[in-house]
Amino acid sequence: VKQSSLNITSVELGEHRHYMHKEIFEQPQAVIDTLEGRITQDQVLVSSFGPKAEQIFKTVEQIHIIACGTSYHAGMVTKYWMEDIIGLPCQVEVASEFRYRNPVILDNTLFVMISQSGETADTLAALHQINHYRKVHDLDGITSLSICNVAESSLTRDADMTYLTHAGPEIGVASTKSFTTQLVVLALLLTSLGKVQKRLSKERESMIAGGLQKLPNLIRMALEHEEEIRDISQLFADKQHALFLGRGTMFPIALEGALKLKEISYIHAEAYPAGELKHGPLALIDETMPVIAIAPLDDLLEKLKSNLQEVKARGGQMIVFEDERSDISSETSFKVVKATTNVGRITAPITYNILLQLLCYHVALIKGTDVDQPRNLAKSVTVE
Amino acid sequence: VKQSSLNITSVELGEHRHYMHKEIFEQPQAVIDTLEGRITQDQVLVSSFGPKAEQIFKTVEQIHIIACGTSYHAGMVTKYWMEDIIGLPCQVEVASEFRYRNPVILDNTLFVMISQSGETADTLAALHQINHYRKVHDLDGITSLSICNVAESSLTRDADMTYLTHAGPEIGVASTKSFTTQLVVLALLLTSLGKVQKRLSKERESMIAGGLQKLPNLIRMALEHEEEIRDISQLFADKQHALFLGRGTMFPIALEGALKLKEISYIHAEAYPAGELKHGPLALIDETMPVIAIAPLDDLLEKLKSNLQEVKARGGQMIVFEDERSDISSETSFKVVKATTNVGRITAPITYNILLQLLCYHVALIKGTDVDQPRNLAKSVTVE
Repeated sequence: VKQSSLNITSVELGEHRHYMHKEIFEQPQAVIDTLEGRITQDQVLVSSFGPKAEQIFKTVEQIHIIACGTSYHAGMVTKYWMEDIIGLPCQVEVASEFRYRNPVILDNTLFVMISQSGETADTLAALHQINHYRKVHDLDGITSLSICNVAESSLTRDADMTYLTHAGPEIGVASTKSFTTQLVVLALLLTSLGKVQKRLSKERESMIAGGLQKLPNLIRMALEHEEEIRDISQLFADKQHALFLGRGTMFPIALEGALKLKEISYIHAEAYPAGELKHGPLALIDETMPVIAIAPLDDLLEKLKSNLQEVKARGGQMIVFEDERSDISSETSFKVVKATTNVGRITAPITYNILLQLLCYHVALIKGTDVDQPRNLAKSVTVE
Repeated sequence: VKQSSLNITSVELGEHRHYMHKEIFEQPQAVIDTLEGRITQDQVLVSSFGPKAEQIFKTVEQIHIIACGTSYHAGMVTKYWMEDIIGLPCQVEVASEFRYRNPVILDNTLFVMISQSGETADTLAALHQINHYRKVHDLDGITSLSICNVAESSLTRDADMTYLTHAGPEIGVASTKSFTTQLVVLALLLTSLGKVQKRLSKERESMIAGGLQKLPNLIRMALEHEEEIRDISQLFADKQHALFLGRGTMFPIALEGALKLKEISYIHAEAYPAGELKHGPLALIDETMPVIAIAPLDDLLEKLKSNLQEVKARGGQMIVFEDERSDISSETSFKVVKATTNVGRITAPITYNILLQLLCYHVALIKGTDVDQPRNLAKSVTVE
């Protein structure tokens, strides 16, 4: 295993108190760097996935994403995108489960392995298992793509294709800009597959390309909510629990928010798809339980509103991140952050996640935890 | 919607303090009733799925299970079984997510809808959506099977096939015997599909049939651990959190244990596949956090042991449900329940779940909650 030459002393903190804070604010640039040379005003360059990409993408019949932790959440967002936008079957799985069960592996599956470090033990073992299966069963249609932030890492060496997120070094143990740039790369993958397989109109491609190019600005606008979010974070000073709710692509974003809060503030945060609330977790709701909901302006808004009324009726404290036009509630029992408007299907989960990063960071400050080096955790999990 | 004529006053509690306790102890009989007439000494009767079953099962190329809450966990166990034992691709999805996204629906998919009441709003809406899709796209290969506990419920009326769990009336809001009998039916489905599609040897079929017939006794043996588990439940008197860990089919069982504990004791319990521990949740572990692990004697035991050592090193209190021969640890920092031995791949998750039911029940007693009618929850979620 090659060690990165970057370490905690060689990257400057600058004006920031923590690497995590610095990395949150580096996200507009990280997205610009990740898009650089891979997209034009209205087109995604399939060739940026490498010389074999076009040929491979033609034959892909389904996607199987394998990852751990935060990278797994990026995969979950992608499943919604793939099936909704280009109609390609997509499944997502935790690497430590995939490798120890006996999965059905179909020919013409593109396996997408996601890992910031490119050295995550379970994800790497899963890739080796897939490569072995392909060889033994002589199934040339099985292909692999690694999405990593570290060039020349093990995952990039052993996959058929590699796509680097150009997030720059990430020092904070809790991943922020890696996750954002992974989603950018996954959106480029979606668009490239849709284009090669003629599952995506020129107009749609141009809309997605345009949306990605607006993303750095959308992220900057989200970052402007820091002060407002810092005020809200006071609410967590004496809290031990939190529930995050979302529907559709906002469910994995809720999972990611909960994971981040766990990692850096040691608050027991859990996420649920909002529709599952009545099937159990509602029993947990009382006045000690803050509930964080992500409420973009989409078809599910009305459903989500009714979920939130249930929470409110049980005395739960609500924090809602909503679209400027979502108009969840102006009642005092809700803390509402009116996020940027004009986000699309691709840019919305990425943008809302920025707001959750800020919330988690400021809650951790209040709790006084070691934000960049939370207890018990390592930056990359290179052992099982 | 037809109301069941059974209600809380017309079913006798007998010697039991709560319906949930009664229903936990009715499980051996519920399994016997569910198997009755559907299995012989070494064969599963495919015809018990109805006159069309054999013809339909021949054409099935993948399974898509849709359910909510506890029924969703039964579906998750089934995914492991289907892919591992008969190599049929299987996916599982929460109904409220399926119905509001834009999923890829392939021809020759068997949709399996699971709901105790047969009236769960989201699951029913998902079935209607599937039926509509089939009609509009003229895809006769799309078929549906409802697994319910209530005859003549909406789900049974609108699906192509129905299979009733004969669990008898379930009064406790937290599902116990429904879940167990759902798994029995899903094991019969697995065996029937495997048999019709010649994906299962006669020997394997006979092993599974034999295992299911031993199940009532295995459950009785698990129930004998009640006193020991009641003692362990004391540990939770002042606890507000818990983490459940499992791998493979024991991951959904861990999820089900955590859901049950949430529902009836209001303890914030969460489940993780044990391999994900290092990717975040380990930050939560300190001496106030009990960790419940399910450790059957299988290929994953050594991996699980190393996960548990990490928890122990951080001061977490461990409660391990293990096989008599698993030998996790005799150290005093671990509370170990040595469960019945000789459980197979099908019977193991069902048997271990019984132990978790007992734990959750006794923790709720200590917490003094309303076990049968926990706050905020209804028995069947017939509205969104």
